[in-house]
Amino acid sequence: MIVISERVNGLFKSVGKAIDDRDKKFLQDLALDQVKAGANMLDVNTGPGVDRPEQIMKWMVQTIQEVTDVQLSIDAPVPSVIEAGLEVCKGRALINSTTAEQKKMASLFPLAKMYNAEIICLTLDEKGIPNDANSRCELALTMITNAMEYEITPDRIFLDPLALPVGAAQDQGMKVLESLKQFKTLCDPAPKTTVGLSNVSNGTKERPLINRTFLTMLMAYGLDSAILNPSDTDLMNALRTSEILLNQKLYCDSYLRAC
Amino acid sequence: MIVISERVNGLFKSVGKAIDDRDKKFLQDLALDQVKAGANMLDVNTGPGVDRPEQIMKWMVQTIQEVTDVQLSIDAPVPSVIEAGLEVCKGRALINSTTAEQKKMASLFPLAKMYNAEIICLTLDEKGIPNDANSRCELALTMITNAMEYEITPDRIFLDPLALPVGAAQDQGMKVLESLKQFKTLCDPAPKTTVGLSNVSNGTKERPLINRTFLTMLMAYGLDSAILNPSDTDLMNALRTSEILLNQKLYCDSYLRAC
Repeated sequence: MIVISERVNGLFKSVGKAIDDRDKKFLQDLALDQVKAGANMLDVNTGPGVDRPEQIMKWMVQTIQEVTDVQLSIDAPVPSVIEAGLEVCKGRALINSTTAEQKKMASLFPLAKMYNAEIICLTLDEKGIPNDANSRCELALTMITNAMEYEITPDRIFLDPLALPVGAAQDQGMKVLESLKQFKTLCDPAPKTTVGLSNVSNGTKERPLINRTFLTMLMAYGLDSAILNPSDTDLMNALRTSEILLNQKLYCDSYLRAC
Repeated sequence: MIVISERVNGLFKSVGKAIDDRDKKFLQDLALDQVKAGANMLDVNTGPGVDRPEQIMKWMVQTIQEVTDVQLSIDAPVPSVIEAGLEVCKGRALINSTTAEQKKMASLFPLAKMYNAEIICLTLDEKGIPNDANSRCELALTMITNAMEYEITPDRIFLDPLALPVGAAQDQGMKVLESLKQFKTLCDPAPKTTVGLSNVSNGTKERPLINRTFLTMLMAYGLDSAILNPSDTDLMNALRTSEILLNQKLYCDSYLRAC
């Protein structure tokens, strides 16, 4: 499992303040903490409503890269902010994200090509989020074929079936699971898969429990990566145990500590 | 999910002692505790090496039935002990268990017919436990067709793909999951499914964590019931959360307490 930390995000109050104060040490400590907690990648997001987000994204990427070489996911709703991050990103970046909307694809796949980046593809389009697995697969194929026109091979694509809040869309859990399995059959090499995990528990009273239970299910259906909070020890223990049960990592008595 | 308590078993020291002492109150309190903790069924097992196990099984069943009407699973390696339990069981019993071995089927399916019982069918035969999902399905079909000769319909059958210890047979986890999905396609009405959950963590250092993580995966693959310890609160919370995520129970903020 590729663990993508969700914590380097201006949405969180302390991170937002560190951005306002241009507090390099705070951001660098946070980045190192996340890597230590098990993050294989850091999702970098300025948060909403900041002035000159392009400049802030650059500052965040450069600040983090001063202390770690871990892969970065450049996360923004606006392509110009993503491009600002890509411009200063040293290693291969992950773009977060495009959708199957024509406008989005037309601006983000060229960026993925130009910067040789990976890219998260959310299965939604102008009509919204589909109601079932088959329709999610249709949108996935649309994005895969569109990406190919830019020489972006499917193994650089992370398909995201979009986990929805269980309190609001309870019938979607099983559909998300089925989507993951179907995504893997769409092409060869198979695309990778990811989810923004915490969305499933949005608005509920049992967020950590719901998050880790759904993560376990997603992994049993073949999930390759997730954007989540690696500082949540119970969540990471469920993740490590799922890896063991799915035979992805070799069992040893101390597998929790070994990771 | 049908929760079958594993605790009413002479294997556990305190239960073994209560059996030796014919301590009715201990057994009755235990049974009521398990029901309160969420058991929909109690697996009743004398434990190994007792004198006159038929008599003890009868005593256990009758003692429990004095305080609760919950369904009982009559669990013994010897058909005569199972029959002793069935003779005194008031409601419909679950027989635990037959295998696809000819001798076993020839003695246990007639009992299931005579007592109108349900029956757990373990997918193993004279050659042992199969290595993959397809071979487990073959054995399942053998048992389903054999049962039909005794007018036992598939909805009275609980197929058990046999969860194996992750430390010793790490490649079997995914095969057990796949078996569950395939079992449901074998006939109409579909057979039910079950597992003896704690076996997966046998010999490991993280038993509760491994148990609840695997249970979550099994449920995502369609598991109908499991023999487990309902007194394990974390396990039951994972179970209730899985029911919510799989849309089997309606979400409400207090779903953990509501159950």
